Amino acid sequence: MSNADVNGTNANANANVAIIGYGLARFNREIKYSLYELAIQSVVDMFSNMEYDARSLKDGIDALITSTTDSSAYTANILADMLGIRARIVNRVESMCSSGVDALIAAYSYIASGLSNLALVVGFDSSNSGMLLDWDVARGDMRHPAHWAALYSMKHMQEFGTSREQLAMVAVKNRINALTNDKAYFYGKDAIDVDDVLNSKPIVEPLRLYDCSIACNGAASILLASADLAKSICKEPVWIKGIGSSSIGASINSIDLTTMHASVDAARQAYRMSNVKPEMVDVAQVHDSFTILEILAYEDLGFVEKGKGGYAVEGKISIPAVNTDGGILGRGHSSGTTGIAQVVEVTRQLMHKAGDRQIKDCRIGLVHNMAAAGTHASVIVLIQG
Amino acid sequence: MSNADVNGTNANANANVAIIGYGLARFNREIKYSLYELAIQSVVDMFSNMEYDARSLKDGIDALITSTTDSSAYTANILADMLGIRARIVNRVESMCSSGVDALIAAYSYIASGLSNLALVVGFDSSNSGMLLDWDVARGDMRHPAHWAALYSMKHMQEFGTSREQLAMVAVKNRINALTNDKAYFYGKDAIDVDDVLNSKPIVEPLRLYDCSIACNGAASILLASADLAKSICKEPVWIKGIGSSSIGASINSIDLTTMHASVDAARQAYRMSNVKPEMVDVAQVHDSFTILEILAYEDLGFVEKGKGGYAVEGKISIPAVNTDGGILGRGHSSGTTGIAQVVEVTRQLMHKAGDRQIKDCRIGLVHNMAAAGTHASVIVLIQG
Repeated sequence: MSNADVNGTNANANANVAIIGYGLARFNREIKYSLYELAIQSVVDMFSNMEYDARSLKDGIDALITSTTDSSAYTANILADMLGIRARIVNRVESMCSSGVDALIAAYSYIASGLSNLALVVGFDSSNSGMLLDWDVARGDMRHPAHWAALYSMKHMQEFGTSREQLAMVAVKNRINALTNDKAYFYGKDAIDVDDVLNSKPIVEPLRLYDCSIACNGAASILLASADLAKSICKEPVWIKGIGSSSIGASINSIDLTTMHASVDAARQAYRMSNVKPEMVDVAQVHDSFTILEILAYEDLGFVEKGKGGYAVEGKISIPAVNTDGGILGRGHSSGTTGIAQVVEVTRQLMHKAGDRQIKDCRIGLVHNMAAAGTHASVIVLIQG
Repeated sequence: MSNADVNGTNANANANVAIIGYGLARFNREIKYSLYELAIQSVVDMFSNMEYDARSLKDGIDALITSTTDSSAYTANILADMLGIRARIVNRVESMCSSGVDALIAAYSYIASGLSNLALVVGFDSSNSGMLLDWDVARGDMRHPAHWAALYSMKHMQEFGTSREQLAMVAVKNRINALTNDKAYFYGKDAIDVDDVLNSKPIVEPLRLYDCSIACNGAASILLASADLAKSICKEPVWIKGIGSSSIGASINSIDLTTMHASVDAARQAYRMSNVKPEMVDVAQVHDSFTILEILAYEDLGFVEKGKGGYAVEGKISIPAVNTDGGILGRGHSSGTTGIAQVVEVTRQLMHKAGDRQIKDCRIGLVHNMAAAGTHASVIVLIQG
């Protein structure tokens, strides 16, 4: 049996699952709130963002999925208890930094399979969640994510002439975008320019401090509903139309350090399932934990040809609006939270509730979430209306 | 909106998902093997148990779910890498001691929703996985599971006249059953009688050492397939026909210490979805981490009336064959492994591959998995043919 047999387009075309609510807690590096307090803040924010009588929905929540890399157990049941939610399906989904979108895909499946009608997904994580790739002996002493981000950066610069300045422009754009997002870590702080990035502290050649995201405490919530329920209570449901996910293991095994193969594979699946082409995407959140990763994402998600990502940053090639809320570089990185926060922003854009940073006439969105040196990636395509 | 609106019988009647493979590693308390080595042993055992050309299936596995309470992250991707499996859906499901059946329900949903055709679920956990209910301030200093098991035991004895001897008979039965299971911790050790239980070390009044399960390292694997795939490659697929799950929070909140309300609720859902009645069940694995819990399970799953569990242990009331492989008391408790190991035994029984302990003419099986003082429970109904 080949992979083609089992990985074909077998997704249930009738499975309509919608996002009907979103919420965030402020990303931070304080010790003011516990992880559960942050999680609850994001749920409260979600309910307050709903225009319809959303609070009465709470008793109808029949699935509660947490997304966290926290080392403690039973987080989903503890959170359910704190929120006063008595759901059927209650568990945690974890796959490092891609836990968020993977938890959303789990919730999609519970609804599509008929086991749930209304699913709450809550991502929360702390600034000290483990990020070292301790399991990967293939890396030798290069266990920090910055090590492999540096490798990918060097290779892209050598192969395609991507410049140090182009990398810096990713950070500049996303830090400016974060100034419109009052839940972002860098909200209310100073804007930066290319020189600031180039003059920031050296981390691993060629990366500087501002090329790297900052680990944060954070929390984000998404509410998903079956088609009938979504249509009956929500004016602008956002539909999950495409899903892709791919794992190429847990070790660096790319023979080609210019492509994230898991991203390419996940995107291909999500485009096929949704019948959406890259050029149709209006707004996207991509996994920019390092500047090079946004450039690779432009290429791996099909927004530009391989090698042209640097030109897209300069605005020389037209691409979707990317990381409109600041992305990981501007919002901060909170492992299990990140994917959910990405979905929150695309949902807001597609519901036309993004305020000052609203992208006009946007209808099709994409979320790209990744883990551990690109060894796992998940992509979803969202469509409004 | 009431709970009835969203928790109705909305399960997809066309979603046929089958178990086509099962495997176990030996439950142990040694430090001879790492958790990943045990996990791989259970997968190798699974492939060797298959009569058809199962090894060629490996490349078709498109979902790999781990079930573990281990504090480390990215276990599913690391295991996928070690096994040489490049799946789409790769993540960990965790809900303390009920992680196992919850991971199986997740895999069911990925297949039923069309995102997977062939899903491997691997449970593995260590003997030192945290079992203290640290989060539950309602318990005061009574944070060890033995504390609440003692409360439930005392109340059942007072209310229904359940005897110390009846409790002991659960341990005796399951330890004897374990002597037929070469993967059980107590395999190859001496059988025990009621006096041995009553004379074992006092733990918490009225519980003795042999009323309590022993924490083990262990691993177990289950392979699930979509209907078409299952029928094309497996002679005796076991169908997941009923699913139930319930969470009543994370704190002791039963007003009635004689019923596990989450178990009652989960069983009700699973019976309704499968159109199976308790009296139709031939073989069951129930969550016997303490002797009282098997007696409560008889009652909460509807095998006997409330209060009659003790009589069933004595054989005075006819019930299904329960914990035929030794259960948790005989096999050992390995948090994330336990639910998967329970499914392994019911699958073997329904495939008529249980060797010396085969229950004759069995066709309908049930698995009952529970967590943290009964605050969460999951039940599945399995049918052969």
